Amino acid sequence: MKKIGVLTSGGDAPGMNAAVRAVVRTAVHGGAEVLGIERGYHGLMHGQVRPMGAASVGGIINLGGTILRTARDSVFKTEEGRRMAARVIEEHGIEGLAIIGGDGSFRGALELNRTCGVKVVGIPGTIDNDILGTQYSIGFDTAVNTAITAIDKIRDTSASHDRVFVVEVMGRHNGFIALEVGIGAGAEAVLVPECGRDLVSLCRKLQAGQGRGKMSCIIVVAEGAASASDIATTITQITGIETRISVLGHIQRGGNPSARDRFLATRFGHRAAELLLEGRTNLMVGIEMGQVVELPLERVVAGRRDLDTSLLALVEVMSI
Amino acid sequence: MKKIGVLTSGGDAPGMNAAVRAVVRTAVHGGAEVLGIERGYHGLMHGQVRPMGAASVGGIINLGGTILRTARDSVFKTEEGRRMAARVIEEHGIEGLAIIGGDGSFRGALELNRTCGVKVVGIPGTIDNDILGTQYSIGFDTAVNTAITAIDKIRDTSASHDRVFVVEVMGRHNGFIALEVGIGAGAEAVLVPECGRDLVSLCRKLQAGQGRGKMSCIIVVAEGAASASDIATTITQITGIETRISVLGHIQRGGNPSARDRFLATRFGHRAAELLLEGRTNLMVGIEMGQVVELPLERVVAGRRDLDTSLLALVEVMSI
Amino acid sequence: MKKIGVLTSGGDAPGMNAAVRAVVRTAVHGGAEVLGIERGYHGLMHGQVRPMGAASVGGIINLGGTILRTARDSVFKTEEGRRMAARVIEEHGIEGLAIIGGDGSFRGALELNRTCGVKVVGIPGTIDNDILGTQYSIGFDTAVNTAITAIDKIRDTSASHDRVFVVEVMGRHNGFIALEVGIGAGAEAVLVPECGRDLVSLCRKLQAGQGRGKMSCIIVVAEGAASASDIATTITQITGIETRISVLGHIQRGGNPSARDRFLATRFGHRAAELLLEGRTNLMVGIEMGQVVELPLERVVAGRRDLDTSLLALVEVMSI
Amino acid sequence: MKKIGVLTSGGDAPGMNAAVRAVVRTAVHGGAEVLGIERGYHGLMHGQVRPMGAASVGGIINLGGTILRTARDSVFKTEEGRRMAARVIEEHGIEGLAIIGGDGSFRGALELNRTCGVKVVGIPGTIDNDILGTQYSIGFDTAVNTAITAIDKIRDTSASHDRVFVVEVMGRHNGFIALEVGIGAGAEAVLVPECGRDLVSLCRKLQAGQGRGKMSCIIVVAEGAASASDIATTITQITGIETRISVLGHIQRGGNPSARDRFLATRFGHRAAELLLEGRTNLMVGIEMGQVVELPLERVVAGRRDLDTSLLALVEVMSI
Repeated sequence: MKKIGVLTSGGDAPGMNAAVRAVVRTAVHGGAEVLGIERGYHGLMHGQVRPMGAASVGGIINLGGTILRTARDSVFKTEEGRRMAARVIEEHGIEGLAIIGGDGSFRGALELNRTCGVKVVGIPGTIDNDILGTQYSIGFDTAVNTAITAIDKIRDTSASHDRVFVVEVMGRHNGFIALEVGIGAGAEAVLVPECGRDLVSLCRKLQAGQGRGKMSCIIVVAEGAASASDIATTITQITGIETRISVLGHIQRGGNPSARDRFLATRFGHRAAELLLEGRTNLMVGIEMGQVVELPLERVVAGRRDLDTSLLALVEVMSI
Repeated sequence: MKKIGVLTSGGDAPGMNAAVRAVVRTAVHGGAEVLGIERGYHGLMHGQVRPMGAASVGGIINLGGTILRTARDSVFKTEEGRRMAARVIEEHGIEGLAIIGGDGSFRGALELNRTCGVKVVGIPGTIDNDILGTQYSIGFDTAVNTAITAIDKIRDTSASHDRVFVVEVMGRHNGFIALEVGIGAGAEAVLVPECGRDLVSLCRKLQAGQGRGKMSCIIVVAEGAASASDIATTITQITGIETRISVLGHIQRGGNPSARDRFLATRFGHRAAELLLEGRTNLMVGIEMGQVVELPLERVVAGRRDLDTSLLALVEVMSI
Repeated sequence: MKKIGVLTSGGDAPGMNAAVRAVVRTAVHGGAEVLGIERGYHGLMHGQVRPMGAASVGGIINLGGTILRTARDSVFKTEEGRRMAARVIEEHGIEGLAIIGGDGSFRGALELNRTCGVKVVGIPGTIDNDILGTQYSIGFDTAVNTAITAIDKIRDTSASHDRVFVVEVMGRHNGFIALEVGIGAGAEAVLVPECGRDLVSLCRKLQAGQGRGKMSCIIVVAEGAASASDIATTITQITGIETRISVLGHIQRGGNPSARDRFLATRFGHRAAELLLEGRTNLMVGIEMGQVVELPLERVVAGRRDLDTSLLALVEVMSI
Repeated sequence: MKKIGVLTSGGDAPGMNAAVRAVVRTAVHGGAEVLGIERGYHGLMHGQVRPMGAASVGGIINLGGTILRTARDSVFKTEEGRRMAARVIEEHGIEGLAIIGGDGSFRGALELNRTCGVKVVGIPGTIDNDILGTQYSIGFDTAVNTAITAIDKIRDTSASHDRVFVVEVMGRHNGFIALEVGIGAGAEAVLVPECGRDLVSLCRKLQAGQGRGKMSCIIVVAEGAASASDIATTITQITGIETRISVLGHIQRGGNPSARDRFLATRFGHRAAELLLEGRTNLMVGIEMGQVVELPLERVVAGRRDLDTSLLALVEVMSI
């Protein structure tokens, strides 16, 4: 393969730059040219491309966000949008594309492959960690670390004021972030979209805790399960206990990538570029049982990863 | 003076523990006994006191929050509340009190002195930095650093997605945090309660920026000036530009104190204990023109520090 | 099982407190009493024990080091030393012991089991990550993150001054830390004890880089491979290029545990306590292929984990 | 003034980029052109200049190091060197120069002004904080924070192992960093070049501490006072107490600037550019008693700031 394009798509995630760097350097090392495509599929449709040499990705492994920028574009989802992209691909002689993003981006990749035959390999990059076929996606570890560090700060106030805090973390459709954050932050309860929530027994637990002098408390809630504000209001209504809320929001999405995200992103980007150099297509790289693997994109986009809800029992034991 | 009490009152602030440590060790070094009073004036009224030796404050200089805990108590504001406190003071033979908190706490200290003659010295501890007579209060520097670090992360996403973010920081009555955060984070605009806000010209500036390719932007707003959500909505209404919001909230209040807050708190606590050992009263320690000073509490509680709004012009120049 | 002891042994590692917390709360939840043993086997020999309830491990999940303290004691390696420990175990009615440490500590655990029949379960806690039978040990992830964050800072100076830096990281016998740090920090070369080092070709690479304008460079060396100072001197001798060194040292061992270390430690401590409650012995808990597993301590202490040196090739490709 | 140059010189310091940004944007705002000069006086002599617009300094306020790079060049200290620089200045029509660096750089600035009449304004940028005429120089606050954060980690190990650590911090000629780090980290002793050190009484204190159970201890030493290794050896010789050492080294020089350094650098850069725009010369901007001031460079280079060694008494009281 002589020319490889690389793009980032969907929500940004810390470690995307490390993946871009790994794709570029592996491709250059393998003798291919690389084109960086800006703003994901939007830029692909509009020819926003620039050549990237080994030096162009120096000093970015530690930066959050994505130097290629990212965007969502509804036009690309149409036949016409994909034809625009195909024309740009043809004009520039792009033979293979490394797509860093989530499952929506991978669906687009498959469509693009169908449209013009360009080889596509996906790299899972999303803080949500819900992509089928990989235990971790790029950005998740950083997001969890950021949220835990934030809750460590909140706990200072919680403990100093004997207060109950409800902290809302990201996770519109699942509780991956909430669960690991809750366990790592030592939360007294974790609410995830995957499980019904029993606020009555939670309230009973809070009251029992206060009965024996445990006045401060952290409850972690995934945004997809409920809003912090609703949970806090309900707790106060049932128990009369004063509560405070914190919505961590976008800070979870940025920041310098953690060690693990850099390591993962580097290995993913490296393997993805190797696969393209070998002329393979319609694959995603992932990590399963500690090994970097590749698997068909078709299978990846067929579903979502399920949360291991058995770990919620661990939260229960840890918060006695 | 033979026996000194120390308490933290009002909202917790990073560095309060460093101040407690400095009070305790200075007093012990000066030959006095120290009693730690828990939960501020609430604990004082209810006799929640414990003896503190030099070793009892080991390993706390780096901890956020306050190991003495803090509380607000409306009963203390009554004559009856202060009599309860006076009884506890007499019972335990407390001759002097170091009060770490804000101006509300200092008003209470003056009342307490009037009630029972206990010597009182205040140590300014509040992230708001609005206490008259001191350039800095304990916790402000940490809060500003925390907010800036958070906005650094948000900027990753802002830049990657070409997005306008409105970030709400603490500051119910003033813009101290907002202004220093805005300058340090390189914000494109800062809205503070002290100044009327001209959203129309802000919108014009945003549009002009977008016209020359500057798509991403951070606007910092003090909670007392407006809600992030209101500002974001208005910007979208006027300009059609998509916005995102982030409310930093309680993370600004906790966390390990910064170097400056530890240094300041240590010097404040040291001087406060020295003043009590000398039998002085109704004073606050502060920092003015780089020097630790003492000044009458009466003067401190007579007003609030004013923000140097001329620095808003600096934001303007920096965001061209 | 009615009474469980828990101790930390060998070098401290971030996350040990999270593991202690998980052992204590799981045991209490399972109806057992828990004794905390201070200063590892040293404290066990000298009866330095204290009862630990669920509340005694509150607020420690985020603390580095170990609240139980740790020590090395050569006496415990003697028959007499183990008899002293056995007497303390008998006196206090300790039926099971959770030992958090490395393979030396696990050898001691097996000897102790032989001496007096106490049930023992090991929890891998060492930043070195070289324990057989577990992909990760507690503290490794934090140590790698700390080192990478430090090198990010050094790179600021390296890039600003166009300088070559040689950075020495921990790893007396292996290159686990060096390899992940090198990849995550984007190092131009990594030297590990497992592989002979070819300084001549490294020098050629440095010179080639400088020829095309790449003046700054980070070389990561495991302390067991060479000293930073020796490598730097040799590079200067061969190439004439000025170098700087940095020995990261003990900062790698402390600090608040990372998300992953807290998660791992909590799961390890939980499982270890469960195993003891079930009356099992001579096991270590570990993580393999993403799952928490248990395996015979005999097998664990029979060797050391090997580094996947194939990843060094990744460093080569990434540093073109 | 129509054209202003800006350069960074000497050792890099966090916040230099914020100062560059402030100079550039203030000058552009004032209607002047700006040239960035790379690698300090070296680049000035060799014509390494590039035009800088307002956008060229976007996204750098939070970066450590200096995007303009820095260097030391002995040729510039010669008459010939300064003539080379003067020719470049003339060729490019540079009328004023903002020099970010330490007193050596300011001496060069004065010489340059004598040589060719270019207007020069200095901005104090050095982590050492020893520049006469300003209470703080850019980078000091970040360096102190970095060192304290590192020692917080070391204290985890110190406390867990009951060990004495000797930590060496930067400060070849003075104890500014050592003193603020020692106070902020809660060190038991601080050794600075300004004061003779009495190791015998330090040892007596350590032994007394151990006598009452205080086994762990942190001693901070400025590199200019002694090497950590020498101090540690002497302590062991006198007391028999086992010690560990840590040399923090270059990590103190890099990293994202703290809030205070960004704020200071922005104000300094702004004022320096204003002064140049007004046609003034041979000045340094500084902060005294909380106000940004300007003062003659001649006076600045006539000496060094003195450390307030009375604060060492504070260390004594805090470490009882």
